[in-house]
Amino acid sequence: MEEIRVELEERSYGIFIGSGILGSIGGKFRKYEFSPKAALVSNPTVYGLYGEAVVDSLRNEGYEVTVILIPDGEEYKDFLWAYHILSRLLKAGLDRKSAVLALGGGVIGDITGFVASTYMRGIAYMQLPTTLLAQVDSSVGGKTGVNHYLGKNMIGTFYQPRLVWIDVDTLKSLPKREFLAGMAEVIKYGVIWDREFFDYLVTERERILSLDPGCLTHIIGRSCEIKADVVSRDEREEGLRAILNYGHTVGHAVETVTGYRRYLHGEAVAIGMVCEAEISEALGIFDRAEAAEIKSLIESYGLPSTAGDALEADSMLKAMALDKKAVAGTLRFVLPEEIGKVRIESGVNEDVIRGVIGD
Amino acid sequence: MEEIRVELEERSYGIFIGSGILGSIGGKFRKYEFSPKAALVSNPTVYGLYGEAVVDSLRNEGYEVTVILIPDGEEYKDFLWAYHILSRLLKAGLDRKSAVLALGGGVIGDITGFVASTYMRGIAYMQLPTTLLAQVDSSVGGKTGVNHYLGKNMIGTFYQPRLVWIDVDTLKSLPKREFLAGMAEVIKYGVIWDREFFDYLVTERERILSLDPGCLTHIIGRSCEIKADVVSRDEREEGLRAILNYGHTVGHAVETVTGYRRYLHGEAVAIGMVCEAEISEALGIFDRAEAAEIKSLIESYGLPSTAGDALEADSMLKAMALDKKAVAGTLRFVLPEEIGKVRIESGVNEDVIRGVIGD
Repeated sequence: MEEIRVELEERSYGIFIGSGILGSIGGKFRKYEFSPKAALVSNPTVYGLYGEAVVDSLRNEGYEVTVILIPDGEEYKDFLWAYHILSRLLKAGLDRKSAVLALGGGVIGDITGFVASTYMRGIAYMQLPTTLLAQVDSSVGGKTGVNHYLGKNMIGTFYQPRLVWIDVDTLKSLPKREFLAGMAEVIKYGVIWDREFFDYLVTERERILSLDPGCLTHIIGRSCEIKADVVSRDEREEGLRAILNYGHTVGHAVETVTGYRRYLHGEAVAIGMVCEAEISEALGIFDRAEAAEIKSLIESYGLPSTAGDALEADSMLKAMALDKKAVAGTLRFVLPEEIGKVRIESGVNEDVIRGVIGD
Repeated sequence: MEEIRVELEERSYGIFIGSGILGSIGGKFRKYEFSPKAALVSNPTVYGLYGEAVVDSLRNEGYEVTVILIPDGEEYKDFLWAYHILSRLLKAGLDRKSAVLALGGGVIGDITGFVASTYMRGIAYMQLPTTLLAQVDSSVGGKTGVNHYLGKNMIGTFYQPRLVWIDVDTLKSLPKREFLAGMAEVIKYGVIWDREFFDYLVTERERILSLDPGCLTHIIGRSCEIKADVVSRDEREEGLRAILNYGHTVGHAVETVTGYRRYLHGEAVAIGMVCEAEISEALGIFDRAEAAEIKSLIESYGLPSTAGDALEADSMLKAMALDKKAVAGTLRFVLPEEIGKVRIESGVNEDVIRGVIGD
């Protein structure tokens, strides 16, 4: 089992990664002084696969666990489902020293984190992410949120989990397409922070795709480590942390314009990373050969590198302007300077953006 | 103008108190580097009286202000009205560097704070409290919240305002009954922290009741100072801060049992303070003569000191057990040892509680 420590003063917490560890959460849970009433939030699919192991482990330690299931899908990550969960917690009698666990992907993690941060002004929560994307991205960094019809994650909080518990074996049941979408974020960490890690993803591709537990533990651990490193230096997303949005300015717009239906988040980010590398190249910041390396790695993992002619430039630009990362109308891009190093650029010329996304 | 500083590291902020200062908020607002789009949340009554002064002041400084009104009343402090405000902010295009102002009483302050803390994971908010209760209580301390049908303030966050701007002239338009209810919280600060302040409230009663601006500035300032002092030492309500709940364990139960209809919050707290002083007396912790002083001061401000025979002890005890301050089923009381000093007691014998509230 690998442990990554996220250092955030009194909000510090550990991320534990291993194979077959889901059923031993109870013993870990017990080390905290929580009230006897706890709750587990999940969806029927994930709960059907792993719920019993987790709940039994907690009940064996004497906890009374209320199970709250919400339907599977991004469209249920909204304010009213958050309200439903909050009401269930109240009815179950959870108090301010209770904890709530999130078992599932990013949707479950984000909405549960939001609920935990607003229930009685904040109770403890623990993440048990079961998708690669949630394991390397949404379970780390304290971002919680629900969607609004005017934009993704427009409502949420910054709120740290008390523990993240990652069992890489859960990836065996994850649809291949979702696994690959998660790989987009893994690749992102290589591009923004660590050339060596990028190269590891090139050379170890086959073992990674065959879900080798050692490889998975390593890439998840290193991804969390990089994210933890960045977040520790900038918890509230005031500066450095913005580099984690590499691929996301364009990626979110791709999702918005296609109504969140055509692409998985990671696929949209893959397209975004290629576009933003090309924007960087067009501005003379980034080398053409390295931009090609990024595109090639993304494609080698079966990820889309372009949306083809499906995206209309005006709609894309409008969607980017509404993105919550846009401050006072200024678009910011995270642009690679070399693989392993990026910079943040404001005021990128609109024609350059059109030139890249318009084709 | 008096300034009280609330020291909470990077979340520190100032409380400014004065007479006739509402129309000069714009100049103060300008000192922060907010985006040009701002929003003001209020209710039709308060907005009709003071809205124009505030909005003009902001517009004169070049800000584009969206006005969001919610109906007047505690029953509108709920999750769906919070969602309404969040949607309006999104439609108006407020970004992460925008600020939202709360002009009104506790309902407006609490719901606006909750909205500000969850809009795009938190934007700046400023409080312009117009009731005595909000000025001395809910505008200080960073508690935000909305009600749930299973309990008051069950959903909320800890989130500090960037500024509190108190114009004592707004108290002239406040119904007398609401002013007196606010005085209950002012009296509370004397009992829990400052005998001298308690005595000031005894001797200066007439000037206070005639709304003398100097007196009002002093009692609001001193109340904020005491609360700020307590909150600075315990922002997340883990220990000391609980003393601010003097009168509230019983007070909240009175509100719950009477469906939040019969008493204003401050009136319920007044009853609660008398009950809890009597519980302390019954336990031999508190002197009978001092308990009588508290009751006498409360009555001299025209506040209720007892609910008569209207409250049934079983319902009261049940309501107390659901209070979010009850941890794992244990009831805690804040009990006076002398005027100016209180202690927290767990496990008060139920018969003692019945003996006091049952009569």
